[in-house]
Amino acid sequence: MSNHGLRGNVLVAQGGGPTAVINQSLVGVVLEAKKYPQVDRIYGALHGVEGIATEQFLDLTGETRSNLEAVAKTPASALLSTRVKPDAAYCQKMFQVMKAHDIRFFFYIGGNDSSDTVRIIKEEAKKDDYEFRAIHIPKTVDNDLVMSDHTPGYGSAARYVASAFSGVNFDNKSLGGVYIGVVMGRHAGFLTAASVLGKVYNDDGPHLVYLPERAFTIEHFINDVKEAYDKYGRCIIAVSEGIQDEDGVPIVTKLQEHIEKDAHGNVQLSGTGALGDLLVAEVKLKLGIKRVRADTLGYIQRSFLGCTSDVDQMEAREVGEKAVQYALDDGLDGSVSIVRTGDYAVAYRLLELEQIAAKTKHMDPSYINEAGNYVTEAFFKYAKPLIGSGFPHGARLRAQMVEKLIK
Amino acid sequence: MSNHGLRGNVLVAQGGGPTAVINQSLVGVVLEAKKYPQVDRIYGALHGVEGIATEQFLDLTGETRSNLEAVAKTPASALLSTRVKPDAAYCQKMFQVMKAHDIRFFFYIGGNDSSDTVRIIKEEAKKDDYEFRAIHIPKTVDNDLVMSDHTPGYGSAARYVASAFSGVNFDNKSLGGVYIGVVMGRHAGFLTAASVLGKVYNDDGPHLVYLPERAFTIEHFINDVKEAYDKYGRCIIAVSEGIQDEDGVPIVTKLQEHIEKDAHGNVQLSGTGALGDLLVAEVKLKLGIKRVRADTLGYIQRSFLGCTSDVDQMEAREVGEKAVQYALDDGLDGSVSIVRTGDYAVAYRLLELEQIAAKTKHMDPSYINEAGNYVTEAFFKYAKPLIGSGFPHGARLRAQMVEKLIK
Repeated sequence: MSNHGLRGNVLVAQGGGPTAVINQSLVGVVLEAKKYPQVDRIYGALHGVEGIATEQFLDLTGETRSNLEAVAKTPASALLSTRVKPDAAYCQKMFQVMKAHDIRFFFYIGGNDSSDTVRIIKEEAKKDDYEFRAIHIPKTVDNDLVMSDHTPGYGSAARYVASAFSGVNFDNKSLGGVYIGVVMGRHAGFLTAASVLGKVYNDDGPHLVYLPERAFTIEHFINDVKEAYDKYGRCIIAVSEGIQDEDGVPIVTKLQEHIEKDAHGNVQLSGTGALGDLLVAEVKLKLGIKRVRADTLGYIQRSFLGCTSDVDQMEAREVGEKAVQYALDDGLDGSVSIVRTGDYAVAYRLLELEQIAAKTKHMDPSYINEAGNYVTEAFFKYAKPLIGSGFPHGARLRAQMVEKLIK
Repeated sequence: MSNHGLRGNVLVAQGGGPTAVINQSLVGVVLEAKKYPQVDRIYGALHGVEGIATEQFLDLTGETRSNLEAVAKTPASALLSTRVKPDAAYCQKMFQVMKAHDIRFFFYIGGNDSSDTVRIIKEEAKKDDYEFRAIHIPKTVDNDLVMSDHTPGYGSAARYVASAFSGVNFDNKSLGGVYIGVVMGRHAGFLTAASVLGKVYNDDGPHLVYLPERAFTIEHFINDVKEAYDKYGRCIIAVSEGIQDEDGVPIVTKLQEHIEKDAHGNVQLSGTGALGDLLVAEVKLKLGIKRVRADTLGYIQRSFLGCTSDVDQMEAREVGEKAVQYALDDGLDGSVSIVRTGDYAVAYRLLELEQIAAKTKHMDPSYINEAGNYVTEAFFKYAKPLIGSGFPHGARLRAQMVEKLIK
């Protein structure tokens, strides 16, 4: 197929926070690359750019298709991950290693930081006479890459969040009170908004949804909770870990100041129950409701074994396959993006790295209601297909009340 | 079939914390009761004993089988739940209502508190000339009912916990550090112990498991974490929310005293991230490890939509069916229990209410290792069948490292 002259080895790596389907993209790259005669070996770097700079490569050429398919269905990064963002000096180290191993096709699976990494590497490469193709393959549960309809990883995490809130909705109905679920998403509210996607009955929770895109005030929050609680006799709330005030200060910081500082003064959004506990304290204090509970969905929402979207699985595989095609058939560099072409159908296109690198997409204003405490029908229409088929459907008894015999 | 003379109406209700399969038992009762000509109507009381005392009955006689089957697969209590424990005066209220509605067969689905409720009601009934059959149907994610091999609800919650830790194991491997997952279980460690059930590779987490059955000390905990972290380069820990010191004082209370009190002085085990956050602070402080994260699995572990054990589903259905048979075919009162009769096979038998009411089963000492920081093979053998078939199996790459070219 290819006629661009480059031949040599493939290098693939994974960066940033893992997702439930990031290994689909890895396996897409490996299996697709195997079809090209100009590819000699297929290497995987451990821990993203770290494993490139320190020359820690796995030789994936001999992996069986069966094991690769099993790895594809396994959450988190099979090649391990990193939070390192390389500068020019770091890139030079990476070049040295990549050149030594005759890497001519480089694929980096990650979010917006990782796309920026690929951009920097290509920029540094211009100064050199070292020619290779480099493609950024998107993934992130945050769904915050610009110029893409959505991002692989989001659909499966969204399915988990929707399942969790659907179950908690029944649980909360059984015993009453207020339930607060804190969902990942530092700057973009897509994952928190997904909490509504499993709703069936009109009075199902979540009844309130708070996103980082809209300024959060305790006063409005308490009023909203009171209103919903009066209406439904209970209240389920989905809150993004990244909610902030109008100056962009995270609420978890403000509340800790307001109530008290924690022992070590750390402010950290994930892997802590602080925000949920602080909101619970506010609701108890200001509304006098006794049963108020908070869960923080934590790392489980991006890695739960056995809760993935089939749509997400397929697309994550395809962005890996397309990346190889863009590099080897077309001789291009760039970032693979997803375009929605129907309801529901997608296609892929290659973007310039500069178009997306280090940029953050937020929820479209049309997806958030005017009061800033719930999502719109437009969001349901956008997100529902992404959680995939066969979403479990809870049911209620339909029986009528028996007439009272005792007054 | 029956020849015990009683005829009248059935009353069924649900009490205590919901499970993912408690509605299977409800549906088992309703569908089985429909087969008996001496049953006129099948009523469900809302909110357990509360709905009996206040005469809030649903008439379930007209529910379709199809809708009942959909409800059976829905987590939490379709008849809603209660934490109320009736005394003699409360029972008199209940009798008045039950008599007025000619209730002759009473089924109460719940844990050890609920079995005690049935016992008290029957005791009160002896003083009266009101004759009815009463059967306690077991459920609890805690798996802490005595004289039963295990309890419906446990298998599905255990499957969720095993799935969560299996996924987190891959996630933690990707980015490293220490991960602490706090699991439900105030007095019994069965659910926390289930965190190990999805392990495949020898170095998979959780590496440490702390249960309420063994006294917990921060000193041992910190030493254990250091040892595991040195060995694996990372560490995953499952901790029961109910861990306590040798005097039975919950660790969450002790740590809050040690580090600082929370704003409202509440000590509450579920629906708060406090214990996880406090343990994180200790590990950071004493071991100087930077990436230390905690998740509290919270209410989601008992209600997650779409993660149930098929074994648990079937048994939860059967305890409902058997309850009706014991009452209507055999004219008995009591509590339904599960007996393991093979590897894996079960049968059911009826216990006297006095044998189990308000008693708590703990993990068998043979299930806990000597150091008190992990489970034994005996526990794996006991618990593995309960999480059901088709447990997802994660896989790793098998590739060899590429020889370094740069020294």
